[in-house]
Amino acid sequence: MSGTTGLAIEAVDVLRAAERIRGVAVRTPLLEFTPLNERTGRRTLVKFEGAQHTGSFKFRGAYNRLSQLTDAQRDAGVVAWSSGNHAQGVAAAARLLGISATIVMPSDAPTVKVESTRAYGAEIVTYDRFLESREEIALSLASSRGAVLVPSFDDPDIIAGQGTVGLEIRQQTDELGVEIGDVLVCCGGGGLVAGIATAVKHAKPSARIYSVEPEAFDDTARSLASGRRERVDPAARSICDALLAPSPGELTFPINRRLLTAGLRVNDDQVLAAMRFAFQNLKLVVEPGGAVALAAALADAVSTGSGTIIVVVSGANVDPHIYRRSLGDRP
Amino acid sequence: MSGTTGLAIEAVDVLRAAERIRGVAVRTPLLEFTPLNERTGRRTLVKFEGAQHTGSFKFRGAYNRLSQLTDAQRDAGVVAWSSGNHAQGVAAAARLLGISATIVMPSDAPTVKVESTRAYGAEIVTYDRFLESREEIALSLASSRGAVLVPSFDDPDIIAGQGTVGLEIRQQTDELGVEIGDVLVCCGGGGLVAGIATAVKHAKPSARIYSVEPEAFDDTARSLASGRRERVDPAARSICDALLAPSPGELTFPINRRLLTAGLRVNDDQVLAAMRFAFQNLKLVVEPGGAVALAAALADAVSTGSGTIIVVVSGANVDPHIYRRSLGDRP
Repeated sequence: MSGTTGLAIEAVDVLRAAERIRGVAVRTPLLEFTPLNERTGRRTLVKFEGAQHTGSFKFRGAYNRLSQLTDAQRDAGVVAWSSGNHAQGVAAAARLLGISATIVMPSDAPTVKVESTRAYGAEIVTYDRFLESREEIALSLASSRGAVLVPSFDDPDIIAGQGTVGLEIRQQTDELGVEIGDVLVCCGGGGLVAGIATAVKHAKPSARIYSVEPEAFDDTARSLASGRRERVDPAARSICDALLAPSPGELTFPINRRLLTAGLRVNDDQVLAAMRFAFQNLKLVVEPGGAVALAAALADAVSTGSGTIIVVVSGANVDPHIYRRSLGDRP
Repeated sequence: MSGTTGLAIEAVDVLRAAERIRGVAVRTPLLEFTPLNERTGRRTLVKFEGAQHTGSFKFRGAYNRLSQLTDAQRDAGVVAWSSGNHAQGVAAAARLLGISATIVMPSDAPTVKVESTRAYGAEIVTYDRFLESREEIALSLASSRGAVLVPSFDDPDIIAGQGTVGLEIRQQTDELGVEIGDVLVCCGGGGLVAGIATAVKHAKPSARIYSVEPEAFDDTARSLASGRRERVDPAARSICDALLAPSPGELTFPINRRLLTAGLRVNDDQVLAAMRFAFQNLKLVVEPGGAVALAAALADAVSTGSGTIIVVVSGANVDPHIYRRSLGDRP
């Protein structure tokens, strides 16, 4: 706990994270596109985390966490589990800091994510997402090696690191003289949206922050409505490989419950359409999980709001065959 | 002619163009990517004109030209010919300024470019690129309507407008504290590279500016070598629909002859590989003609240079079937 709110992080923790990642992480661009403004009917700005190291925001939290390890912890190495973006973030941060990393990844993770994680020098252990427990495998590995386990969202330093996205949104909208209205952020375990909400609401209490989830993985939306941490159906499926967390985090949910306006949902067809929209009109490559916030904006999910819409495009690591599918069969 | 150099434009003309497009055109981002740095072995920055209005740099020159028309000229409208990017640039600038635009486009222009030009409200007249003369059709249209013809590159205001890309590169590298080494720029008629060279060389005389062309359309490279304006073989073909100009411009060539270090060439396979590299590593959509400078960088075309490499990715308007081809058949 930090400070007096009883929440896992406060705005000052995001500021400290920003100091740690300064000059290491990319300050990603906040971009504007006429076709998107015309489609939403309001000024809409896109925070493009595909331009971050490793192609997603996950590098921020991973570097914030790993840079604070003691020498003894660095020597023992780190272990993480991830479908791919946290894997790459941890692997890249570990390489920069000279730490050995072992990542537990599902056997059906996107090829691009597995290859990239390996290219950053991490050791990869695969498991069957439907039969085995990644937690058990990772805990056993960490325990046998004395290694530090690096959670993908339920950790104060991870949440604060992801929150630097929100800090940059504040700075960049200030530079543009823009008033933040609605902020749309993808949500798996809720670390990114919790971090962004912490940073944005601290300075702009009137901003409305929304989590966006695949409709079969709407645990945060249902939890926000019920007030307790709901779980997804184990049989649920989605094209959004990055957003398959089974329930809101123990640390992220109290933050999101306090700071979010509501949870939004999009379906896989809307996600594919958003990827195609980004190809045609934004000229940005977007992965399925990175496209949910854009999909919500295109579906007029916040059409009753006012002020500028901020769409966080959180990642861009997508296998070509999925991307080709988003482009369709027509010329 | 402008000033004392005998060239069509000087650096001050680019400054004036920058004043005209300020707040109207996008100040596009200058981006850095670890995988590209590692591939070239030098710090490499990407100027991404896909983020410009209409998805290419062409809006800059078009707006600079059209914003200077007299009221009578605005009332009579404008005519242009273009394979698609200049078409969209003129159409979008004309719409903003309340001017009617007629664009002569080849019947085999990319669908995305034709549809977008029409969406900006322009009238489109198509012609057969191998049988008809676009110049004759456009001149006849302009003459019968009393309309102003807006050339795609051989015009001082067009060149100066495109040169604002170079001015932004100067400003953005100054902000980063970066010394410009080699600048790689695509080349059709040579307007973009002439404008960029004018802006960059004025402040950084030691910078080396290279044009990059499809190998079958290497008229500028051969002209720079021979000292006179060479022509391409009429039977030449390339996937780079934006770079099919038959010879260097009357106004652009003297600038490029004075300011460029050399002309580089890439083939269609290198272009497709560069598009795929951008998908995987830069997360940016790039059209074939927009990828030639990146292709040259990936081919180590300037490996003997020093300082930072600037790669201008000039456009991103590509039909899905061509893009799918660049991604290949593998997962």
